Amino acid sequence: MLKTRIDPTDTSPVALDGVKGVSMRILLGREHGMPHFSMRHFVVAPGGHTPRHAHDYEHEVVVLSGSGEAEHDGEVAAITAGDALFVRADALHQFRNTGDQPLQFLCLVPRDRDGGGEVPGS
Amino acid sequence: MLKTRIDPTDTSPVALDGVKGVSMRILLGREHGMPHFSMRHFVVAPGGHTPRHAHDYEHEVVVLSGSGEAEHDGEVAAITAGDALFVRADALHQFRNTGDQPLQFLCLVPRDRDGGGEVPGS
Repeated sequence: MLKTRIDPTDTSPVALDGVKGVSMRILLGREHGMPHFSMRHFVVAPGGHTPRHAHDYEHEVVVLSGSGEAEHDGEVAAITAGDALFVRADALHQFRNTGDQPLQFLCLVPRDRDGGGEVPGS
Repeated sequence: MLKTRIDPTDTSPVALDGVKGVSMRILLGREHGMPHFSMRHFVVAPGGHTPRHAHDYEHEVVVLSGSGEAEHDGEVAAITAGDALFVRADALHQFRNTGDQPLQFLCLVPRDRDGGGEVPGS
């Protein structure tokens, strides 16, 4: 059975424009043979944030620890461990760590774009 | 933004052959407009188990709390919080709570079968 573990010490820095203090690991992805969707683990340092961007595929997110805020299509919501969120395709969105502990979440994406082509980081 | 919460007190019993002590809730599913895959929250009581079965779509699972074992295609692995697992399509599989606390996990499924038709509970 394919089994891996969430490990905040085993993530790699994300080097994208607009990113601050974010690292990630693909837990279950294309490289592991996932047929339809991929599970990634993100760690955002206190004061850090993901890029404020939009793309043509959705996210399903579950917050594992820490606290912060999620911006989605102009709305900002507080987020904390146990929250499950849907980021729809083409919505401008960002995750920000406003707490003093690492903000950890899982973010799932489809493997392929609807119109064809790979989803990056899937 | 569509946001919901993992809540072990807000799940419904699963009434399927071969199930013991399992309840679940669809956190992000077809009913919420998920385009490609669905996130469900499962709670298995101590001594309980999911059905030992196989089906033509995969699972991606992440264990949130508790401990137990996962059977997959004849192999049995210990599972605990933080484990991420892939159950491939057509593999005979079962999740069993062998601990004394509830075993909680998220289980994600594609919305549609490859050959067409809805995945149940998606």
